[in-house]
Amino acid sequence: MKLYNYFRSSASFRVRIALALKQLPYEYISVHLAKGEHKQAAFADLSADGLVPLLELDDGNRLSQSMAIIEYLDEQFPGAALLPADALGRARVRALAQSIACEIHPLNNLRVLHYLVKELQVEEDAKNTWYRHWVRSGLEAFERQLAQPGTGAFCHCDAPTLADCCLVPQIFNAQRFQTPLEGLPLTMGVFERCMAMPAFQSAEPSACPDSGA
Amino acid sequence: MKLYNYFRSSASFRVRIALALKQLPYEYISVHLAKGEHKQAAFADLSADGLVPLLELDDGNRLSQSMAIIEYLDEQFPGAALLPADALGRARVRALAQSIACEIHPLNNLRVLHYLVKELQVEEDAKNTWYRHWVRSGLEAFERQLAQPGTGAFCHCDAPTLADCCLVPQIFNAQRFQTPLEGLPLTMGVFERCMAMPAFQSAEPSACPDSGA
Repeated sequence: MKLYNYFRSSASFRVRIALALKQLPYEYISVHLAKGEHKQAAFADLSADGLVPLLELDDGNRLSQSMAIIEYLDEQFPGAALLPADALGRARVRALAQSIACEIHPLNNLRVLHYLVKELQVEEDAKNTWYRHWVRSGLEAFERQLAQPGTGAFCHCDAPTLADCCLVPQIFNAQRFQTPLEGLPLTMGVFERCMAMPAFQSAEPSACPDSGA
Repeated sequence: MKLYNYFRSSASFRVRIALALKQLPYEYISVHLAKGEHKQAAFADLSADGLVPLLELDDGNRLSQSMAIIEYLDEQFPGAALLPADALGRARVRALAQSIACEIHPLNNLRVLHYLVKELQVEEDAKNTWYRHWVRSGLEAFERQLAQPGTGAFCHCDAPTLADCCLVPQIFNAQRFQTPLEGLPLTMGVFERCMAMPAFQSAEPSACPDSGA
C-alpha cells in the first residue's frame, strides 16, 4: 500500500495511527500541502478530491477520506480491532470520531485559515481566536461525551479505536495553536495513554520523513 | 424511536431520509435551533454534545452524529441497504458521504455563520460568498468523484445509500443560498432521481411538522 499524505495533516495522521495499530507496512509518499503539491497535476491525476490522505491499495484501487479508509482497513485486515464488535459500540465510536472530524477539524484546516486571512482580511490574532474557539468548544463537548458510559482507558473501553485515531491529531493541533486544554481530564487522560503507545508515537508528525521538508 | 431534530438542519434531514428509506416509524421531536432550544436544559440533559439529530432508541439508548446513526440503522434494521455489501463499495460510499459531511457542511452551519457575523463582523455579502465558496468548491470535488467508476442512477450504483442521504440536504442548502449549481450534471442528476422518490420527499424540510414554527 502507498499512503499519500503530509506530516502535519491531521487526517493523514489519523490513518498513520490506524496503519501502525494494525501493524500494516506501507510506502510513505509525501504531498507537501504548504507547497501546494496537492494541487499539482501529479496528485490531481490520482485524486478526485485533491485531498490527503489518499491510500492506494496494492491492486491499484485508491481510497479517500480518513474515516472511510480506517473503516476499510479494519474490515479487511486482521490485528487490533479499531471498531467495536457490537452495533451500539460502533455507533458510539463513530459518533466520537465524527465529533472531531465533522465538528472541529473542518473549521481549522489550512484552506479555511487561508480563506479567513486572504478573503476576509482577518487579522492573525482573530484567526488564532477562531481556531481556539472551535477546538476548545469542540473538545468540551467531547469531554462531556467521554463522561458518558463506555469510556475506559481509551475513548471506548480499553483499547484504541477509530475515535482515538481522530482525537490524538486534534490534540496535537490544539497544542500547536496554544489552545487551553485544562479542565479536560478525561480527554487528556486518553490522549496521554495513547501517546504512551509506540503505534501513536511512530505516526506523529515529527516522526514523518517529510517533517523537515 | 424518537428523533430529536429540526426541519432545517441538514444533518437531521440526512437521518429522516434514512428512516424513510428503511420504512422505520419514529416520533418527531422538534428542537428549534433558531430559537436556541438545543441549548436549553431539557435538551442538554439528553444530549452530551447539544447537537441534533439525536436518535433515542426504544430501549432508551441515545445516538448522536448523523452518519453514525445511519450506519447503526442500516446494521440493525432490515429493508433497503444504505451501505454496499462489499468493502470497497462501503469505502466509496463513506468517502462520498464524508466529502459532504466533513468538507462542506461544517463550514456553513448556523453556529459558524453566527461566528462570522458576530465575532468577525463579516458583512452579509461576504458571509454569503463564504457560504457559496465552500458549497460550490465542495460540490465540484464531489462531481469529480461521481465521474469515477461506481456511480449509477444514484451516488453509488442504482439505489440510494448513505452518500445520497448526505448529498440531498446539501443541495437543499445550496439552493437556499442561491449557490450556482450549473456544470454539475452527475451530482444534479442524482439529486433529481432522489427527489423523485417518496422517501426523500417525505423527509424534506417543508414536509416537517415544525417547518412553520
